Amino acid sequence: MKAKREALTSLFTAMREGKVDEDIIELLLLINSIKGVYTTSSCSGRIGIIEEPALGAKPLSRWLIKVHRPIEFEEALDALRNAREGLIFLKSQPPIFHIVAEDMENAKKLHEIGLASGFKYTTFKVISNRYLVEINATEYLTTPLGKDGKVLVDEAYLRFAIEVGNSMLKRSKGRLTRLEENFRKLREELGEDELFYELVRDFEIEKNWRIP
Amino acid sequence: MKAKREALTSLFTAMREGKVDEDIIELLLLINSIKGVYTTSSCSGRIGIIEEPALGAKPLSRWLIKVHRPIEFEEALDALRNAREGLIFLKSQPPIFHIVAEDMENAKKLHEIGLASGFKYTTFKVISNRYLVEINATEYLTTPLGKDGKVLVDEAYLRFAIEVGNSMLKRSKGRLTRLEENFRKLREELGEDELFYELVRDFEIEKNWRIP
Repeated sequence: MKAKREALTSLFTAMREGKVDEDIIELLLLINSIKGVYTTSSCSGRIGIIEEPALGAKPLSRWLIKVHRPIEFEEALDALRNAREGLIFLKSQPPIFHIVAEDMENAKKLHEIGLASGFKYTTFKVISNRYLVEINATEYLTTPLGKDGKVLVDEAYLRFAIEVGNSMLKRSKGRLTRLEENFRKLREELGEDELFYELVRDFEIEKNWRIP
Repeated sequence: MKAKREALTSLFTAMREGKVDEDIIELLLLINSIKGVYTTSSCSGRIGIIEEPALGAKPLSRWLIKVHRPIEFEEALDALRNAREGLIFLKSQPPIFHIVAEDMENAKKLHEIGLASGFKYTTFKVISNRYLVEINATEYLTTPLGKDGKVLVDEAYLRFAIEVGNSMLKRSKGRLTRLEENFRKLREELGEDELFYELVRDFEIEKNWRIP
């Protein structure tokens, strides 16, 4: 699969540049080692504070802080001091995986894996001839905190909202173990991909990460 | 399509019982009049206040207030007086349509219509042999307001959060016009469904609603 070669090249380059969330790297390697599937953009789940200059103007948004683990109250407070313009949101988002499948049959299997692992918002699209599965969950928090540099909540509320956001993140990340088990089973079923191991060697991935 | 007959029976019965959001009825009728597709659960978009006894225990949640138009500050305040137990959230959700397509080709068309109409979170699933398309947008607000009957935000913040939630709802509902235009074009392309008009007569739908 030419597309898979490009995707893996892209992933391994990003990994070597430190641009991939460490806590899902093993899972990404596992998924990509399977014949007939490969990942594109994926995220291990995150919580942070973001400024959106205008509602919906996503490219112009800037994160004041963004972490892939529960956020601390103090670091959130610090980050809020940099708020300048636009709506300020506390956002908590679950892990999300985008996986391309070679054919409809594999796409359906990926879809079932997502749902069976508790990622209830797993869906897919067909774009050109690619079957793109999105493994996603429902634990999204989107809480406005203020506007144009001014924070409109008190510290007690901020603590509370952060607590709720962190709980959601823990819950959704907690499913990653089950997801990994289900991908191991899929690997036994579909087999390993030689191309993956070839590129692992080319990029010397085994030097820093455990290879499935 | 036997499944379409059942779905239309279900929809028309619910409409006569006043259980379907009035502001999307015309659009639902338009979509269902098209050969080869039919709607299942759909919602015109809403904003409200909900109590969730335990994070994620969705069936046990109860809405304190839920409206399909921008919410008023006073009615939100009144509703909050009934908060008792669990996490209290202000939630704003865009219109969402679930449409079953007869085959992959139609599913792809529906998918394109959703995206072309600005519903950027349009996806689909294949379940058994049914192609289920979900036309969905990104404007979701999930704001914790308090816990176990106690509201942890002041009135100024509540006004602010409601304003943000209402803006989101107006934006996403504003796309319904474009969605309707695109479905009219699809109808010209795929044609009318005789079954739809047969059931419209059986259920006397034309007495209270405009038939496409």
